[in-house]
Amino acid sequence: MLTGRVAGQAILGRYGAAAVAGATGRTLVTTVVEGGQARVALDGPPANALSLEMLNAINEAMKSAMADDEVKGIVLTAAKPGIFCAGLDITAMYGADQESATVFWRAVQDAWLNMYTCPKPVVSAINGHAPAGGCLLAICTDHRVMGNDGGFAIGLNETQLGIVAPPWFARPYADLMGQRNAERHLCLGSMLSADDALAIGLVDDLVPTADVVETAHATLAQYIAIPAQARAMTKAMMREATVRATLGTQEGREADLGRFLALVLSDPVQASLGKYLKALSKRKSKSK
Amino acid sequence: MLTGRVAGQAILGRYGAAAVAGATGRTLVTTVVEGGQARVALDGPPANALSLEMLNAINEAMKSAMADDEVKGIVLTAAKPGIFCAGLDITAMYGADQESATVFWRAVQDAWLNMYTCPKPVVSAINGHAPAGGCLLAICTDHRVMGNDGGFAIGLNETQLGIVAPPWFARPYADLMGQRNAERHLCLGSMLSADDALAIGLVDDLVPTADVVETAHATLAQYIAIPAQARAMTKAMMREATVRATLGTQEGREADLGRFLALVLSDPVQASLGKYLKALSKRKSKSK
Amino acid sequence: MLTGRVAGQAILGRYGAAAVAGATGRTLVTTVVEGGQARVALDGPPANALSLEMLNAINEAMKSAMADDEVKGIVLTAAKPGIFCAGLDITAMYGADQESATVFWRAVQDAWLNMYTCPKPVVSAINGHAPAGGCLLAICTDHRVMGNDGGFAIGLNETQLGIVAPPWFARPYADLMGQRNAERHLCLGSMLSADDALAIGLVDDLVPTADVVETAHATLAQYIAIPAQARAMTKAMMREATVRATLGTQEGREADLGRFLALVLSDPVQASLGKYLKALSKRKSKSK
Repeated sequence: MLTGRVAGQAILGRYGAAAVAGATGRTLVTTVVEGGQARVALDGPPANALSLEMLNAINEAMKSAMADDEVKGIVLTAAKPGIFCAGLDITAMYGADQESATVFWRAVQDAWLNMYTCPKPVVSAINGHAPAGGCLLAICTDHRVMGNDGGFAIGLNETQLGIVAPPWFARPYADLMGQRNAERHLCLGSMLSADDALAIGLVDDLVPTADVVETAHATLAQYIAIPAQARAMTKAMMREATVRATLGTQEGREADLGRFLALVLSDPVQASLGKYLKALSKRKSKSK
Repeated sequence: MLTGRVAGQAILGRYGAAAVAGATGRTLVTTVVEGGQARVALDGPPANALSLEMLNAINEAMKSAMADDEVKGIVLTAAKPGIFCAGLDITAMYGADQESATVFWRAVQDAWLNMYTCPKPVVSAINGHAPAGGCLLAICTDHRVMGNDGGFAIGLNETQLGIVAPPWFARPYADLMGQRNAERHLCLGSMLSADDALAIGLVDDLVPTADVVETAHATLAQYIAIPAQARAMTKAMMREATVRATLGTQEGREADLGRFLALVLSDPVQASLGKYLKALSKRKSKSK
Repeated sequence: MLTGRVAGQAILGRYGAAAVAGATGRTLVTTVVEGGQARVALDGPPANALSLEMLNAINEAMKSAMADDEVKGIVLTAAKPGIFCAGLDITAMYGADQESATVFWRAVQDAWLNMYTCPKPVVSAINGHAPAGGCLLAICTDHRVMGNDGGFAIGLNETQLGIVAPPWFARPYADLMGQRNAERHLCLGSMLSADDALAIGLVDDLVPTADVVETAHATLAQYIAIPAQARAMTKAMMREATVRATLGTQEGREADLGRFLALVLSDPVQASLGKYLKALSKRKSKSK
């Protein structure tokens, strides 16, 4: 399974430069509603990095879908196959001051709350790589369908960058793969192949990438077929302990923010992020 | 695995009409003790539905087995193969008033406590379908042997009826199959085939239905061979957190009762139960 | 899987007589440091039983490795293949008075804390049988490599002796194999074959016994390659709840000590230990 880690490093090499916010003003998330199902597609080329703008766009799309009575469930996917989501925008953290880092992290927290506590069912159509924050979005949904023919990798690989995935990343991860697998893959910062992800429960179904979105909609229909209130109460019950222990209270959110700021604004982490961005930039120039 | 859900719906169609209490006065549970092992058999045709009378009979049988020094362990089974237990008696909840619903639910709570905290080992011989409350009985025992040749299905499929399985159903379920499998199958109200149940840990062993009871007694002998006090203390230690968080205190029991009454006596749930009973009744007439 | 238990009894029969402390004065643990990796080898023939002397030696070795900046990670193994560690020294508990039992148990607690909370990665090279306390050492490390050609068995088989594995044994066990597998195998006191241990996650990798140490060092290198602080913080985060709930506070340690003393000094447990030692002694004489 450790081969996944190597694959992950390759991905960061190939796509890491994309982990920069899309230009402001561009539409970063598109939502289509059909037959009671919303499809929320991340559309921030080249890598759907979670910049502040992208996070705000995701949060808006989720709130709209939750407020729309016509929408009975949501499929989350990338507008273009290849990269589901490259994770948090490194440039939003490198060189950030306390204020901008605070605004950014609050948007990450909001995205987690919108996704993880959504009373409507959400199915991920993972049609590309999903490192770090990209993996986080997927593990907060109800069900994960992944493409098995693109060499895609998925995982919370934060430690590779010298960062620590907080408990609200780690607990849903452990809920999918068990405590030991989560400890191992979080400590090693593993990026897992689709097959390895399926084997340990990180994803639920593998299909050809061309069929991921359609399969996700069909799966969502199974969730929608269940009496909505009972299903939503059951989901909330199963996730209650994690929500309460992490971001479920204002106190919990502030404590988490404080830990993030202390870590991300520290010299060693800034140095690590800077080194990483420099390496990406060099690779980018070479490939021109 | 989702095919199981379809199977479950078929089962409810075929056997749901049986989910009505056996006639008062009839012996609903028989206990045989042989070689230090008690066999407690549910005998409430046609479906061993958990009516108030059946629950009281189960609770009496468990208390007797616990108090009998000759009994070192218990096998729980159905007197006749086909339906292990069809679950809670819908007619005990449909049109119920506060008082009768209270008496009924307290009997369900007692059954859970008697089964889940029994210091003697209990092995389920699942020789038939085990939806909802039938599944609950099985997951509270120490070990599950299931018949693999009857097309039997098992699962906590409450959401299919618009009901929510409370935490004392959900936690033991998750202890067997992991948090993610439990969330998925509780949300979908899945009924699982014997093979699927084995694959995720919901049952421990599959054998031909004709051998289920004998295998359960042989398995029970392995548990009985362990020094009794150390084994019982270990079981209690492993289940302590769930007991304490749910029905282990009078306060917890009352809070759970309050939530049940609020849900089951609500108009939407009553409507859902009524619709379900009507559908069963129609099917029953048609099949005459 | 229950065949493992039988295997375990055979092991106790063959090696149990060895569960006596090595002679005082002998070097019981050797440490070699090479290329940033320490190898801590238990060397207390014939069975690496955890006597007070052995526990003290292990604790010293761990503290030295933690304090040595050159050491980036640790491999824990047995100096000679055959028995990784036979578990707690029964003679340290049989006939013990309150004071000696207290000193002994505090050394066991220290060993757990040193191993389980070690900020440096630790990989077990399990090149022999690992019953009870031997299994405990292994499950406290970050990763387990086991020999698959020696007929070795591993497990927390305390109940077989009438003893109860406390929560700080049981929780890490459940973290590896899931709650249900842990309840089953703790209740039955199962000893598992290498194949069965791999299947349920009790160990991570199987290799020929001759390659166990080398493989453990190679695996350790993967852990060491990750930024050390982020990896250590992640490990601590994943283990925090268990540490806090058990031996993480002075209060918790004392409460645990009290429960141990009450149990181990009780007449039934003393009788059970005495019977066991007598049986071992007879077998030993016969085999001369």
